Amino acid sequence: MEQVLLEDALTRMREALEINDLTTASHIIEALRPADQAEIFSDLNDFQQAQLLPTINPADAADIIEELYDPEAAELAVQMPLTTLVRIVNEMEPDEAADLLDDLDPLQADAVLAQLEAAHRIKSLIQYSDDTAGGLMTTAFVALQRRMTTGQAIEAIRTWHPDEETIYYLFVTDRLKRLVGVVNLRQLIVSPPSTPIARIMDDDVISVTADTDQEDCADLMQRYDLLALPVVDEQQHLLGIITIDDLVDVIQSEASEDIQRLGGAEPLDRAYLDTSILAITRKRIGWLLLLFFTATLTGWVMDSFQAQLQAMVALAIFIPMLIGTGGNAGSQTTATIIRAIAVGDVGLRDAWRVWLHEIGIGVILGLGMGIIGYFLSLAWVGDFRLSLTVGISVLVIVLWATGAGSLLPLLATKVGIDPTVVSGPVMSTLVDATGLFIYFNIARLVLGV
Amino acid sequence: MEQVLLEDALTRMREALEINDLTTASHIIEALRPADQAEIFSDLNDFQQAQLLPTINPADAADIIEELYDPEAAELAVQMPLTTLVRIVNEMEPDEAADLLDDLDPLQADAVLAQLEAAHRIKSLIQYSDDTAGGLMTTAFVALQRRMTTGQAIEAIRTWHPDEETIYYLFVTDRLKRLVGVVNLRQLIVSPPSTPIARIMDDDVISVTADTDQEDCADLMQRYDLLALPVVDEQQHLLGIITIDDLVDVIQSEASEDIQRLGGAEPLDRAYLDTSILAITRKRIGWLLLLFFTATLTGWVMDSFQAQLQAMVALAIFIPMLIGTGGNAGSQTTATIIRAIAVGDVGLRDAWRVWLHEIGIGVILGLGMGIIGYFLSLAWVGDFRLSLTVGISVLVIVLWATGAGSLLPLLATKVGIDPTVVSGPVMSTLVDATGLFIYFNIARLVLGV
Repeated sequence: MEQVLLEDALTRMREALEINDLTTASHIIEALRPADQAEIFSDLNDFQQAQLLPTINPADAADIIEELYDPEAAELAVQMPLTTLVRIVNEMEPDEAADLLDDLDPLQADAVLAQLEAAHRIKSLIQYSDDTAGGLMTTAFVALQRRMTTGQAIEAIRTWHPDEETIYYLFVTDRLKRLVGVVNLRQLIVSPPSTPIARIMDDDVISVTADTDQEDCADLMQRYDLLALPVVDEQQHLLGIITIDDLVDVIQSEASEDIQRLGGAEPLDRAYLDTSILAITRKRIGWLLLLFFTATLTGWVMDSFQAQLQAMVALAIFIPMLIGTGGNAGSQTTATIIRAIAVGDVGLRDAWRVWLHEIGIGVILGLGMGIIGYFLSLAWVGDFRLSLTVGISVLVIVLWATGAGSLLPLLATKVGIDPTVVSGPVMSTLVDATGLFIYFNIARLVLGV
Repeated sequence: MEQVLLEDALTRMREALEINDLTTASHIIEALRPADQAEIFSDLNDFQQAQLLPTINPADAADIIEELYDPEAAELAVQMPLTTLVRIVNEMEPDEAADLLDDLDPLQADAVLAQLEAAHRIKSLIQYSDDTAGGLMTTAFVALQRRMTTGQAIEAIRTWHPDEETIYYLFVTDRLKRLVGVVNLRQLIVSPPSTPIARIMDDDVISVTADTDQEDCADLMQRYDLLALPVVDEQQHLLGIITIDDLVDVIQSEASEDIQRLGGAEPLDRAYLDTSILAITRKRIGWLLLLFFTATLTGWVMDSFQAQLQAMVALAIFIPMLIGTGGNAGSQTTATIIRAIAVGDVGLRDAWRVWLHEIGIGVILGLGMGIIGYFLSLAWVGDFRLSLTVGISVLVIVLWATGAGSLLPLLATKVGIDPTVVSGPVMSTLVDATGLFIYFNIARLVLGV
C-alpha cells in the first residue's frame, strides 16, 4: 500500500520534471515524510536531483540530505551553488552538517562554514571522526542548571528551544557547565513548579567521552535502555548528546558490516545499487585473492599425497564431502561465537568454557556424521577399509573444525582484530587444507596406501 | 571499570550467599541497574537464584526477569512459590508478563492470572504470538481524548499515570476509542493550557495491526524515526503501543538470527553458554547433514570424471582452489545481497539490475583471478594447457558463482523463504558440485583428456 503510493508519487514527479514544472515536483516531494522523500529522491537521476533540490523548501532538502548515504550526500553537495548549500546546511542537525562538511573539499567546506548561522557548533563537531561518540552527538540540546526549579525549567524549555528533538532527557549542569545529573520531561511535569531540579534529578548519569567508539555507545544505550547518552570531556563538561535514532542506525550498520565480513567481503559504504561495479570489486578482491593463495596450500597437500591418490583414485571421491563438512561445521561455530561476542553473551574470560562446549558439540556431531559417512561410502564404493577411513576422518575433522572455530574469534578479539574477519570463508579455507591432511594421514594408517 | 565493579559485586554476593546472608545479597543486587542485576543474577547457580529471588524487592525481581532470555525466565518461574511469582508478575510490564505466562504450564499460568491486579490487560496480550506487533506492544499507555485541552491533558497525565514509560508520544482517540492522532509531550508543554488537543495533534499517524510481523514494525519505526508505534484493530481501536526499547531488541535479535543462519546454523533462543550442548547440536545437525548429502553430488561428479583424473593426476591439485574460490565468490555475493534486502536497499523489482551488477563484478573478478590462476599453475606444474584450463575455469566459475549468488536470495524472497537460508554454506556446497563439473568439462575441451 505505502509502496504503491510512493511509486505513484515518483511517477507524478517524473512527469512534472519532464515538462520542467519544478513547482509541482517540489510540492509532491514536500508532502511526504523524510524517509520517503529520500527514497523517491534517490530514484531520480543526477540531473533531476541537481535541478530539483534548490526549489525544495530548505528544511525538507535538509531532511533529504540527512537521510541519504554520506557519499551520495557529498556528491550532491559538491555540485550545488554555495547559497543553496548554505541555506540547506543551516537547516540540518549539527552532527549531520558536520559529517557532510567533513566529506567536502576543505575549500568548499570553509566557504560554507563562513556563512553558516551556527558555524561554531558545527566547527567543534568536525574534529571528531564519524564513528565515535563525538561524531554521533548533536550539540543542539537543552541543559538545565542545578539551581533552577521545575517551573523555571519548563519556562526555559518553552522560550529557549521550542523544537529540539532531544528534549525527553534533560541533562543538568553546574555553574562550570559540568554534567551533574539528568531529569526526564515527565518528572518535570508531574512535580510542583517550585521543586528544585537538584531534588528530582538523578545524579547517577551514564556518560561517555567524545572518543568512545560508536559500538560501545550503542551497547551502553541498549543495555540500559537509554533514550539519550551525554558526551563529556575529561573535566565532565557536557559537550553534546547522542539520541536513540542515531543508535538504531549504528546497530543496523554494525550488523551490516558483520554480515558482509562474514560473507568474506569488506562492507559497502552506500546502497548496493548505488555502489559502482568497480567499487564493489575492490571490496571483494582482497579476501578472494588471499583465500585463493591459501587454497594453494590445500592443493599442495593434495600434491604431496599424489602417491596415495594414484594408488586409490576412489579416495578423491570423498574429498569434497570431507572438506565441505569441515568448512560448514567451522562456519556454524564461528558464526555463533561471533554473534555471542557481539551481543556480550561471551567474552575472553569464557574461552575455556566455550571451547569445552564446542568440543562436546563436535563429539556428538562428529560421531553422528561419521557413522552416516561410513555407511554412505560403504554403499557407494563397497570397500570396508575405505569407509572406515571416511568415517574416522569425518569425526576428526568435525571435532577439529568446531574446536578451532570456537577459539579463532576469541583469539582475534584478544589480539584486537574484529572477530568477523575469521569469518565463514576464512574458516572454510583453513579447514580445507588441514582437513585434507587429516584425511590422507588416516588413509595411510587405515588403508596402508 | 564497570566490569570490575560488577565482578566485585558478584564476589561479595557469592560470599553473602555462602553464609546464607540473603539480606546483604539482595541489598547488593538492588543497588545495581536492571541490566547489571540480570547479568550478575545469571552468573549465580540455579539454587542460589531460587533462594535469592523471593528476598529481592519485587520491582527489582521483575526487572531481572524481564532482562533474562525468555526460556531462562520461564524455568525460574516454574520453581517459584505462587505468591512470590504473583508479587513479581504484578510489577512486570504487561507485554513481558504475557510473554512469561505464555511460556508457563497453562495450569500455573491460570493460577497466577487469577491473582494478578491487571489480569485483564495481560490476558488480552497472551493471545498474540511473541514475534508480532501484538506480542511486542504494551497495554499500559496514556491515551488522550480529542476534546481535551492541553491543560487538561497535562493534569490527566499527572493524576492518572505517574510512571508510564510510554509518555513521550501521547496518542489521541475519539469517543469510540479509535486512534485519530498523536501529540508529543513537548508540544503539550509549549502550548498554552487552553489549546485544544485536536488543534496541536498530528492526525497523520503511522499505525500497525496486532498481527504485523515484528520485523516490519522495526522497519517502520526505524524508517520514520518513531519512539513509539501504535497498534490498532481493524476498526482503528487503539490496542497498545510498541516502544523504542523493544524495537532495539528486535533489531538485535533479527541480526543475530541472520548471522547464525548465514553460518549455516539455526538461531539459538538463549545465551550461548546457557544453551545445552545437545540443544546446540540439534540446531546445527540439520543443515550439516543436508550439506553432507549435497556434497556427495560433488563426489559423484568427481567419480564420473575418474578417467580424466587417472589420465592427469595434476588436475586434482587445483580442485580445492577452484571450488574454494567459487564458494567464496558466491558467499560474498549472497551476504551482500541478503543484507541489502534486509535494510531495504534492494527488492524483488531490482532483480534484473542486481544480476547485471553482479555479472559486471564477476567479469572483472573472474578475469583478474583467472590470469593469476593461469600464472600460478604455470609456475607450479609447468604445463601450458593445464594452466589455460585452470585460468578459464576460474573465470567461468567466479562468473557463475556471482550470478547465482545474486539471484538465489531474491528467488528465496520471491517464494517466501528467508533469504538467509541460501547462506554461505549452502552457496559453497552448491558451487562446489557445479564448479567441479565446469572444471572437468573445460579440461576435456582444452586438454583433450
